[in-house]
Amino acid sequence: MDQDTLGTIAPLAIVTLISVVQNAFFAIKVEHESKHCNGKGFQRLGSSAFDRVYIANQNCGHTYPTFLAMLWCAGLLCSPAPAAFAGLVYLFVRQKYFVGYLGERTQSTPGYLFGKRIIFFLFLMSVAGILNYYLVFFFRSDFEKYIKMMTSAISPLLLIP
Amino acid sequence: MDQDTLGTIAPLAIVTLISVVQNAFFAIKVEHESKHCNGKGFQRLGSSAFDRVYIANQNCGHTYPTFLAMLWCAGLLCSPAPAAFAGLVYLFVRQKYFVGYLGERTQSTPGYLFGKRIIFFLFLMSVAGILNYYLVFFFRSDFEKYIKMMTSAISPLLLIP
Amino acid sequence: MDQDTLGTIAPLAIVTLISVVQNAFFAIKVEHESKHCNGKGFQRLGSSAFDRVYIANQNCGHTYPTFLAMLWCAGLLCSPAPAAFAGLVYLFVRQKYFVGYLGERTQSTPGYLFGKRIIFFLFLMSVAGILNYYLVFFFRSDFEKYIKMMTSAISPLLLIP
Repeated sequence: MDQDTLGTIAPLAIVTLISVVQNAFFAIKVEHESKHCNGKGFQRLGSSAFDRVYIANQNCGHTYPTFLAMLWCAGLLCSPAPAAFAGLVYLFVRQKYFVGYLGERTQSTPGYLFGKRIIFFLFLMSVAGILNYYLVFFFRSDFEKYIKMMTSAISPLLLIP
Repeated sequence: MDQDTLGTIAPLAIVTLISVVQNAFFAIKVEHESKHCNGKGFQRLGSSAFDRVYIANQNCGHTYPTFLAMLWCAGLLCSPAPAAFAGLVYLFVRQKYFVGYLGERTQSTPGYLFGKRIIFFLFLMSVAGILNYYLVFFFRSDFEKYIKMMTSAISPLLLIP
Repeated sequence: MDQDTLGTIAPLAIVTLISVVQNAFFAIKVEHESKHCNGKGFQRLGSSAFDRVYIANQNCGHTYPTFLAMLWCAGLLCSPAPAAFAGLVYLFVRQKYFVGYLGERTQSTPGYLFGKRIIFFLFLMSVAGILNYYLVFFFRSDFEKYIKMMTSAISPLLLIP
């Protein structure tokens, strides 16, 4: 790969690596809890604590391919830096979700979905990138610079809770 | 990214975006049903309706990474347009599968697998692309044009139920 | 795609294709067992044999996106051949894990995690690739050749059980 392409891929790859570390953290939590509950091996129906960690891991794992696909689409089609930033915010939200799920009070477990706003932002970035490609293709009018500027300007707003 | 590469990626990215919208639809269905069943939060063992929507979402989510990997491999290695078309058909079949799973009569739930034919078609496209690369590499004989023509011709056959 | 890029992608795509075949094998096993347990359709809570095959498939499916992301990151950022080799070893380990899970003695089921060493190797390869990119970017010192040589030399060590 030449340096230019690598420069586009590198920030996205870094976020992917961090997300893999987080996945490993979740998986180790699950394995630890499963060993804590019964010494013999992995069983799904165990104590309440194990059930909670298992479901939290499952919910996080379920949205992981969607997140990865959005991250890379937004990064490649539009602009890598804001996409990587949004990815980092998503990983932070996911960490909070996972820890919140393990909390003592079962009543206050968070819902099934999380990070909707960030996924939506990445989705809009991808749509903007695709639209721009077809605008260039059909009308020769390139808004890439404005889109990149706008996404960079909007991305800090994701930090607002 | 230059315009040529973007032209290859764009159709695949559009299908990916549509699949993400569908994933969001499935997830919202699950969350809605989980709130409907118990007001307090997310629990896995609930009413029969929730169980069905949960399992349908899980089965769809399970094959999602496989589908994405096949879609992009077939699109990048062989030809993007037929791959994107097959992806669209797959998303349609998935929608039908999900809705069918939620139907009233439990006896007639569809099986665990769906869209086998489409995944198989994308798989064959990827294999053809890889074979062609090695043919060019070793024997300098390029069948790319014929492969692209053939896949374009075969892809409408996926519409046959 | 030009031939150079295809040459980078081809080994990774081949491993991805093999992993998809393996996924299909797992899914067929699950469907076969679910039909064996009850003729009417797919139900999650069935006999012990079905439970085991279902959980094994789920555990394998859970780490699949992580594996794919690592495989492609390591291959694109660092060197495709050792990454593809590590991917093959991972698929072999996964096969052993799946078959081991279905074994008769429930006490000896393997844990939740598997292939940690291989994922870690792919992770290190990605990190090395990213570090090298930033070294080139900031200091104009390229260690790409040494990294590729080292990863090629280390990768056979993954075969040690």
